[in-house]
Amino acid sequence: MATAGKVITCKAAVAYEPNKPLVIEDVQVAPPQAGEVRIKILFTALCHTDAYTWSGKDPEGLFPCILGHEAAGIVESVGEGVTEVQPGDHVIPCYQAECKECKFCKSGKTNLCGKVRMATGAGIMMNDCKSRFSINGKPIYHFMGTSTFSQYTVVHDVSVAKVDPQAPLDKVCLLGCGVPTGLGAVWNTAKVEPGAIVAIFGLGTVGLAVAEGAKSAGASRVIGVDIDSKKFDIGIGVDIGVLVDLTDGGVDYSFECIGNVSVMRAALECCHKGWGTSVIIGVAASGQEISTRPFQLVTGRVWKGAAFGGFKSRSQVPWLVDKYMKKEIKIDEYITHNLTLGDINKAFDLMHEGGCLRCVLKMHE
Amino acid sequence: MATAGKVITCKAAVAYEPNKPLVIEDVQVAPPQAGEVRIKILFTALCHTDAYTWSGKDPEGLFPCILGHEAAGIVESVGEGVTEVQPGDHVIPCYQAECKECKFCKSGKTNLCGKVRMATGAGIMMNDCKSRFSINGKPIYHFMGTSTFSQYTVVHDVSVAKVDPQAPLDKVCLLGCGVPTGLGAVWNTAKVEPGAIVAIFGLGTVGLAVAEGAKSAGASRVIGVDIDSKKFDIGIGVDIGVLVDLTDGGVDYSFECIGNVSVMRAALECCHKGWGTSVIIGVAASGQEISTRPFQLVTGRVWKGAAFGGFKSRSQVPWLVDKYMKKEIKIDEYITHNLTLGDINKAFDLMHEGGCLRCVLKMHE
Ligand SMILES: NC(=O)c1ccc[n+]([C@@H]2O[C@H](COP(=O)([O-])OP(=O)(O)OC[C@H]3O[C@@H](n4cnc5c(N)ncnc54)[C@H](O)[C@@H]3O)[C@@H](O)[C@H]2O)c1
Ligand SMILES: NC(=O)c1ccc[n+]([C@@H]2O[C@H](COP(=O)([O-])OP(=O)(O)OC[C@H]3O[C@@H](n4cnc5c(N)ncnc54)[C@H](O)[C@@H]3O)[C@@H](O)[C@H]2O)c1
Ligand SMILES: [Zn+2]
Ligand SMILES: [Zn+2]
Ligand SMILES: [Zn+2]
Ligand SMILES: [Zn+2]
Repeated sequence: MATAGKVITCKAAVAYEPNKPLVIEDVQVAPPQAGEVRIKILFTALCHTDAYTWSGKDPEGLFPCILGHEAAGIVESVGEGVTEVQPGDHVIPCYQAECKECKFCKSGKTNLCGKVRMATGAGIMMNDCKSRFSINGKPIYHFMGTSTFSQYTVVHDVSVAKVDPQAPLDKVCLLGCGVPTGLGAVWNTAKVEPGAIVAIFGLGTVGLAVAEGAKSAGASRVIGVDIDSKKFDIGIGVDIGVLVDLTDGGVDYSFECIGNVSVMRAALECCHKGWGTSVIIGVAASGQEISTRPFQLVTGRVWKGAAFGGFKSRSQVPWLVDKYMKKEIKIDEYITHNLTLGDINKAFDLMHEGGCLRCVLKMHE
Repeated sequence: MATAGKVITCKAAVAYEPNKPLVIEDVQVAPPQAGEVRIKILFTALCHTDAYTWSGKDPEGLFPCILGHEAAGIVESVGEGVTEVQPGDHVIPCYQAECKECKFCKSGKTNLCGKVRMATGAGIMMNDCKSRFSINGKPIYHFMGTSTFSQYTVVHDVSVAKVDPQAPLDKVCLLGCGVPTGLGAVWNTAKVEPGAIVAIFGLGTVGLAVAEGAKSAGASRVIGVDIDSKKFDIGIGVDIGVLVDLTDGGVDYSFECIGNVSVMRAALECCHKGWGTSVIIGVAASGQEISTRPFQLVTGRVWKGAAFGGFKSRSQVPWLVDKYMKKEIKIDEYITHNLTLGDINKAFDLMHEGGCLRCVLKMHE
């Protein structure tokens, strides 16, 4: 490619300060160094976690930064030593890396790869502890190792999943976060079995994906709880009941998909004695704690949680894309709005109004 | 037997009031009604849970009552419809019943049988909602459905495990609570696998049984934490390390065997990110709560608990007795003191001094 090895100047939405509207800027994106990949982002969605960091409530949020972590694009160029992807490959950036070599990856027990975590947490790249984004020489931090609110981004090679080039990128971008987070919490973390009764707290994209996963796992009843009545109408083809005292002794599985510590407690305590399992997915405000009486656990309830639904990103995101292509999982139904990068502030506003699941931004005109 | 169908008057230790010395009294023990079994208790041990209720800290404690739940004896007579045991059988009373018919027993997921729970919680028998114990016509409450601090007791048939008549009852009485609670938490609840690193908080009988279970499961390292330095010397043949920051990233499994909510939190948080599992066994004072940041769970730690180590009592206590007879599990090593029923208050004092694991009382001269 003509741009390989050169700095690319392109549009990106920069978060200069918490809670201040993002600013569309011309940013300089440096070429990928060893073990890095530069991606032309075609579509990105907004997730609650972007809004959380943007709001300033995330004590680890660094500004100025380029947010965004649910996206799809095409590899523009690769740095030295990158073998698993090449220019032209269709890819989904993965905020949860998978190196296949670290203690976590090799454990067979978790998807939480540790290889680039220190660097991505610090908003920089591992190779030289610097950012690849700048505006007139002033560095702009990376976010979650993905920074997809930019027309071009640079990520570590362990953070790129190569996917079927036939897959529509304006849809499969959602496989970068929300939908797998919900499906995987059911399939990998809770391992819901046929006949189970499932309660879901919060029916945003994550909660509705839990509903879809539960239905596909054969759950006999799916009970949803949300304060936004519009969420019950959106529907994604799963018949969601309303929590009343209809369950005999409690639910078999519950999922917290809001980020509210009081709801997390309720979600645990509505589980059936002896075996009920509650999975925390929502991200709570910093400093907040969950509590319960230990008796809840001694009498057989299990409290767990999941990040990215327990999916190994590079290995399993391509598999999820294939499942979508075979119509085994849904994506289109979660996309309630489509806008362009220039409208990103409007997209954030939409998230806070009822009735919005995912808004997908087109990144290039 | 000559006594069948008649009231038996025998010695029992009665707890009239919280925290007041138990009183050895002549009590009347009514004959077993339908579905009930009267047992001549030969040996009983004292467990921390007896002391907890006796202390008055258990809000569900009922007085006057006859405490005791870790014992062994011989069936004296049985009520109508009792088929699984008969007079002369050697038995261990089981505070955790197993009816094999209720929703819990049939779930295949828990040992928490629900059949007689309401009655045993209320200190009475299910058949007529009355106690079988009285002194001069004044009823005395049952405790945990076992009340083994009496020379004779009456229990529900679903609460009796029939064991090998060759087994020494002065030893296998410990299989009524503490030792299975520790072993089962490792084998059934945590499912510790070979090579795992295990931390144990509290090295009483329960904690040391966890150590024994962990060793037999192939744990590569067992780390113990206790404020009573004598516990490290008692040893039951397991080499117990001391918790220092020797573990790379945390332990694979931790067990709380004290009943202290601050330690429960520490036990969870010392677990390895991604997979560490913490099991609560200790019984906390009423009203106390456990807390943590939800991030601890979202990053893959699991919080659970167990009662009676998850063992199905009537099915598995006989199997544990057989394992003891084959020298596959230890019991003798946990017995640090032997006294008689008349010395029961001294036995309670011993529990609160360091260096005591289990004190076994001989019930008949
Ligand atoms: N663990 C992970 O890997 C992971 C990944 C993605 C998102 N998340 C988190 O999951 C949560 C859900 O994400 P989302 O994108 O679906 O968000 P969302 O905002 O679209 O959905 C949240 C839903 O919860 C409802 N809600 C809010 N307060 C409620 C209450 N008190 N009771 C009942 N319902 C309530 C809202 O009406 C909304 O429908 C967020 O906290 C997000 O940060 C976690
Ligand atoms: N869940 C169940 O089914 C079940 C069954 C039996 C016992 N229990 C409970 O398990 C717990 C242990 O029972 P046990 O019979 O072994 O009791 P125990 O009193 O013999 O042992 C407790 C140990 O904890 C130590 N300890 C106390 N405070 C400590 C602290 N802050 N830090 C470190 N160590 C501390 C003591 O020195 C002692 O060695 C009790 O709470 C008991 O009620 C639960
Ligand atoms: Zn997200
Ligand atoms: Zn890794
Ligand atoms: Zn006990
Ligand atoms: Zn039962």
